Amino acid sequence: MNSSETLGRIRIVLSRTSHPGNIGAAARAMQTMGLRRLCLVSPQRYPHQDAISMAAGATDVLDHATIHDSLPQALAGTALVIGLTARPRQLSHALVPVRVAAAQAVEVALAQQEVALLFGTEMCGLSNEELDQCQLLAAIPTDEAYSSLNLAAAVQVLTYELRMAAIGDIKPEAAAFPLASHDEVEGFYGHLEQTLVEIDYLDPAVPRRLMQRLRRLFSRARLEKEEINVLRGILKMVLRQVRRP
Amino acid sequence: MNSSETLGRIRIVLSRTSHPGNIGAAARAMQTMGLRRLCLVSPQRYPHQDAISMAAGATDVLDHATIHDSLPQALAGTALVIGLTARPRQLSHALVPVRVAAAQAVEVALAQQEVALLFGTEMCGLSNEELDQCQLLAAIPTDEAYSSLNLAAAVQVLTYELRMAAIGDIKPEAAAFPLASHDEVEGFYGHLEQTLVEIDYLDPAVPRRLMQRLRRLFSRARLEKEEINVLRGILKMVLRQVRRP
Repeated sequence: MNSSETLGRIRIVLSRTSHPGNIGAAARAMQTMGLRRLCLVSPQRYPHQDAISMAAGATDVLDHATIHDSLPQALAGTALVIGLTARPRQLSHALVPVRVAAAQAVEVALAQQEVALLFGTEMCGLSNEELDQCQLLAAIPTDEAYSSLNLAAAVQVLTYELRMAAIGDIKPEAAAFPLASHDEVEGFYGHLEQTLVEIDYLDPAVPRRLMQRLRRLFSRARLEKEEINVLRGILKMVLRQVRRP
Repeated sequence: MNSSETLGRIRIVLSRTSHPGNIGAAARAMQTMGLRRLCLVSPQRYPHQDAISMAAGATDVLDHATIHDSLPQALAGTALVIGLTARPRQLSHALVPVRVAAAQAVEVALAQQEVALLFGTEMCGLSNEELDQCQLLAAIPTDEAYSSLNLAAAVQVLTYELRMAAIGDIKPEAAAFPLASHDEVEGFYGHLEQTLVEIDYLDPAVPRRLMQRLRRLFSRARLEKEEINVLRGILKMVLRQVRRP
């Protein structure tokens, strides 16, 4: 299953949202991360122009958002419901960081089952009745002194973690330009050493690990073929200066 | 060092931001994640009521935001500048996912050096001149079909990853040798450019992106203080050769 199918099994449920702008911004956040299914439970003002303008063109998600009268309706068919909470709860469920929750959500989705991420109101979060519908609670680790995350910002962080979990291990980027071969790099070091001797910077009798130092610097950069050409072109011009009568 | 001190060494730099509301929302995102230093380079409209209302009480960050006329001023004292970009660039720097970039930023901060995360405009991102100031580019892995992340949402994801890296149980190792500061690296580039002109390798009238190319090479290596001294020592000797009668 590719990441798009996996993320297609995860829905975002916003319950009793006060501000329609937050619904639009949440839709935008979802669409950037490849999530498509937005469920709105008793939104206070919706549809609304603020939702459309904050969605900034993320119309795929907003146009297909479903509206529900009750939470159980929005959660129908799910195998796992994860509630987002800003604070520890008294009658506590398991409370995990969002990174852990995202991994569990993706695991369930990979097994072809449906998952819901549930967000409560902007002011009060999840009610006790909503908490009872969750199997797991997740929190975004915020600063103790100021934990007031905007609803759409919380959706952004969570959907980002879902996408990171779904696309799996971070693949290093393939090098954009061909790297220089070992022989080419050694040719450059020889040319560089010769130049440093001729400009009187390197005394062959007292080399003081200078070349090792420069090798360490350039090897961190992993020189490309074209860069070797540039560097040797520079050395050639330096030597021309040194050798002029 | 605790995570608060580590994050205190990382500044967020917003360049030429169009909408003051985004500045406020970015301040709020930062404050939830325990980042405190916001630098604004030539904001188009600031101060502004929209910034205050979108900050939603995150006044610690907003009240202490600094305003700068030029990017180098905002980057003064940094050892690592990471640019956020939405797309691959032609003459590309190393481009890594934000999770990897956050780990590197925290590694440098743990070594008690300063880091900047640089965000360009809402419409166009970073300019080429801004890219030239970065040692590393980072991208948030978005859906191919819709990658339009709001500026404050991008700041939220990035600061979340910085916080996760800073509080993480796996602490990155501190760098072994002190990195050169932004000013020191810029001083080296200036010296290098001058030298290339004097040896007739670089024609100021037809620069052909040579300096960008060399910046890209050296920024991959992340120059150390001591290496800057060696490289500038070499340039000094070259110039002595060029200038001899």
